Amino acid sequence: MKQFMNSKETLITEAIDGLVRSAGGALARLDGFPHIKVVVRADWDRARDGAAKVALVSGGGSGHEPSHAGFVGKGMLTAAVCGDVFASPSVDAVLAGILAVTGKAGCILIVKNYTGDRLNFGLAAERARAFGLKVSMVIVDDDIALPDLPQARGLAGTLFVHKIAGALAEAGADLDRVTAAALAVIRSTVSIGMSLDTCTVPGSPKEDRITPGKAELGLGIHGEAGIEQVDFSGARAAMGMVADRLLPHVGMADHVALLNNLGSTTPLEMSVLAEELARSSLGARVRHIIGPAALMTSLDMHGFSVSLLPVTAEQVEALAAPVAPPAWPGLAAFDTVPLRPLPDGLAPIQPEPSSHPLRRALVERCCKALIAIEADLNALDAKSGDGDTGSTLAGAARALMGALDRLPLADPTQLYRAVGVELSQTMGGSSGVLLAIFFAAAGDAAAGGRDWIGALSAGLDRVMQVGGAKAGDRTMIDALAPALAALPQGVAAAAAAARDGADSTAHMTRAKAGRASYLSADKLSGHNDPGAEGVARLFEDIARA
Amino acid sequence: MKQFMNSKETLITEAIDGLVRSAGGALARLDGFPHIKVVVRADWDRARDGAAKVALVSGGGSGHEPSHAGFVGKGMLTAAVCGDVFASPSVDAVLAGILAVTGKAGCILIVKNYTGDRLNFGLAAERARAFGLKVSMVIVDDDIALPDLPQARGLAGTLFVHKIAGALAEAGADLDRVTAAALAVIRSTVSIGMSLDTCTVPGSPKEDRITPGKAELGLGIHGEAGIEQVDFSGARAAMGMVADRLLPHVGMADHVALLNNLGSTTPLEMSVLAEELARSSLGARVRHIIGPAALMTSLDMHGFSVSLLPVTAEQVEALAAPVAPPAWPGLAAFDTVPLRPLPDGLAPIQPEPSSHPLRRALVERCCKALIAIEADLNALDAKSGDGDTGSTLAGAARALMGALDRLPLADPTQLYRAVGVELSQTMGGSSGVLLAIFFAAAGDAAAGGRDWIGALSAGLDRVMQVGGAKAGDRTMIDALAPALAALPQGVAAAAAAARDGADSTAHMTRAKAGRASYLSADKLSGHNDPGAEGVARLFEDIARA
Repeated sequence: MKQFMNSKETLITEAIDGLVRSAGGALARLDGFPHIKVVVRADWDRARDGAAKVALVSGGGSGHEPSHAGFVGKGMLTAAVCGDVFASPSVDAVLAGILAVTGKAGCILIVKNYTGDRLNFGLAAERARAFGLKVSMVIVDDDIALPDLPQARGLAGTLFVHKIAGALAEAGADLDRVTAAALAVIRSTVSIGMSLDTCTVPGSPKEDRITPGKAELGLGIHGEAGIEQVDFSGARAAMGMVADRLLPHVGMADHVALLNNLGSTTPLEMSVLAEELARSSLGARVRHIIGPAALMTSLDMHGFSVSLLPVTAEQVEALAAPVAPPAWPGLAAFDTVPLRPLPDGLAPIQPEPSSHPLRRALVERCCKALIAIEADLNALDAKSGDGDTGSTLAGAARALMGALDRLPLADPTQLYRAVGVELSQTMGGSSGVLLAIFFAAAGDAAAGGRDWIGALSAGLDRVMQVGGAKAGDRTMIDALAPALAALPQGVAAAAAAARDGADSTAHMTRAKAGRASYLSADKLSGHNDPGAEGVARLFEDIARA
Repeated sequence: MKQFMNSKETLITEAIDGLVRSAGGALARLDGFPHIKVVVRADWDRARDGAAKVALVSGGGSGHEPSHAGFVGKGMLTAAVCGDVFASPSVDAVLAGILAVTGKAGCILIVKNYTGDRLNFGLAAERARAFGLKVSMVIVDDDIALPDLPQARGLAGTLFVHKIAGALAEAGADLDRVTAAALAVIRSTVSIGMSLDTCTVPGSPKEDRITPGKAELGLGIHGEAGIEQVDFSGARAAMGMVADRLLPHVGMADHVALLNNLGSTTPLEMSVLAEELARSSLGARVRHIIGPAALMTSLDMHGFSVSLLPVTAEQVEALAAPVAPPAWPGLAAFDTVPLRPLPDGLAPIQPEPSSHPLRRALVERCCKALIAIEADLNALDAKSGDGDTGSTLAGAARALMGALDRLPLADPTQLYRAVGVELSQTMGGSSGVLLAIFFAAAGDAAAGGRDWIGALSAGLDRVMQVGGAKAGDRTMIDALAPALAALPQGVAAAAAAARDGADSTAHMTRAKAGRASYLSADKLSGHNDPGAEGVARLFEDIARA
């Protein structure tokens, strides 16, 4: 498997250094690599801070980032002890973490319920107590996937414990109170997860366990198989199953939900799952939410978990307290979606129709000219594009012909604007928008007193600015710009200039804007850009009139 | 492809509702679904706030989350206009966003350089100006992958613009100043990305474009192919290539780096990449870092990008200013890794050896007994485990025999503790740690004045607490607990109780702790737990003495 790492052996130590280095001085690590991988608060002095405040030490195998090192900081963990991927840290590493941060106020070890973690943290606690330190240890077992096993696993609900115990410790609560608060959280936290794919363990081939159309429900965070494979039929059914499993475990109290990304689920999917949580059988009980966010991952697992905690007002306050680690997403009320009315002005005001026989004739002639060259331009476009330039322009011309009776023909400013609006509503894609911008800017210029050549030139300028194309880029600008420049010498001169410009595009073998810019030279050489050709034909037609 | 969504058609609207609902009242959306998908600051009043402060409007196709809706909030965007996945929003949607938030102070449109976005935002700007609103528009083109194309793409460097313009607008700068600041950032921001895999576009099959051993360098954020495929040989070489491409574009000024996760890269990999950035040819120029974090993603793409901005002191201040959106990771100094010395006390103090012939004989006899039953216990363990219980215990016994001369045999407290330390250093796995906890707790109890039976019982209690097993769980506790309970009646009674307990494990068909808990009943039924059998054999041997 390809992964952005250098070796399995250095993955965790390098990742820790990267994390600590990017923390802006908020974190430090113990000088015990490679065996002792402990991240600590840089601002924490064991003697000074540890005398007044309980230290929080957590950790376990790596692969669950940002847990746990990412949650070291004021208001959450004081130290995180990191093992290798999915492997418990050694007793010595845990002991080093405890000794590095624990002062007279003592420390609490927050341990997920896995045998290795229990044992290594447990023995380290014994050793620390032999030094006379006050150490308590709590074991998080929030998983409800395996109802028969008394040894429930520790999952993302661990974050509730970190946050609530952390807030109390920061506020100066003593070890007994912090421990009691942690135990109270553990007793009532429940979690379950679902995944669409397994995770990629660094250095190992990926297990292809979950068949198409299936998901795993009730999984752990170490790549182990879920308790069952279920049919997968979308986000709503997925969250529905998770909610159904959680529902028997929750009472009528207000709950906080923690919506955890297990790794590679996209933010779009996580937001859809948040919406489905609100719509689920649990929705009415969830008053606050943490996330959706990656909090307790399982490497790159494509899955999510929901953790629920029935809360008191004090617990809500503790969960909402600000903390230093940027990985903590905060607590938010989970409620309705606030709607704002659409602003006025989206529907363009219909101008008053007016008549002007000469202008009407000109517009009509232009439209007919564009309709007449539909097939030619399509054929030209087929050589370098999708063959629809002619149809796009002819379609717009037909629509404009149909709108002639409602156009404000007598008022140039209004007419430009109205043509722009018509074109933007009837032409698809970039060309419609560009012509709409052209006519809108021309209208502004006309309102500002410029004559018709000046107005059209202003339109061209704005199109070049917004569209990003200029002369020589093999676009319709190569015909339109010289035509407008020659217009003061008359329509015949403009038509000749447009023709020269259009023909010059046949030698432009590198398009610099639009879709043709992705084509190779040999597909462009020898034939005109269809947009430029259309402009030239239009001017030539008018000149013949 | 399996994804947590309900339909391609509802993906974005449901995701927006989930995002807004989870924002705790900080966000709202315009009531224009499905065509108009605009997220706005809930606390922003167009007339009140928009009169004093410039509004920031950004957006584009979806699939780049948290960009852009996730960055709506005080200090960053005022509104985000969301298209469908990788598709520009319509002119009407952009116009709705502008009209919803823009007051007398005007608004700035921050647009990534893609034709669709330029055109739709551009025309919306024209329409908004026709209402008399002050609207400026800047186009971000930070991509350096395509040196020949004047139309460089907009990538994650867009976040620099959001943040710096956002901080200035929040501080009350006028539209000209905000626009000038945005343009200054755009002029000097450079970005390039690398990916190991393509992204999964919802509703489409995944393109399998990147061959094994290869990576794509210079990719966009819409799943388009990178400018070249390069050999992939790990994180260091990957960051080295990215740094080499960026280096010609950067001067000697202090730079801020934005290290962006393109989607499914794990936090471990991103942290390794941060470390490699520090070690790269760019390392010395990077004084601050934003991330690593998912900021401008390309759905679930397994890749990263680096954006660089040479900064003035004011720009650093603007980047560091606190903001409301939790997705913003903050700015951090990027420097050395702060190290803390390992605490004293990790190496256990070697106790003074002392002699006590009776205890020495007892320890020796126990060790010999365990060595004698090695093969029997291995055979028993092979039926339900990995067949090493006998070897594990015998190995520990041999090590303890070799340590007899340095044990503090005359002092029971010290002896228990020393045996615990010896066992934890020589026995692997759970059993070694559990026995170390057993003897450490026994030593504490002996120090507290309890006799040898009381000390051993205290050890058992702690092992049960930490290990989580109790009588009936098919572990060595099923023999050890009754043996210790019977010890006051003599060793013979203890041996008989241990035998009864060990034999009872043959009927325990559901192990509740340890590895055997994952085995089915038929693999356990009819034979004793090897740990319990070992305890029984040990007591029987002592009783025969």
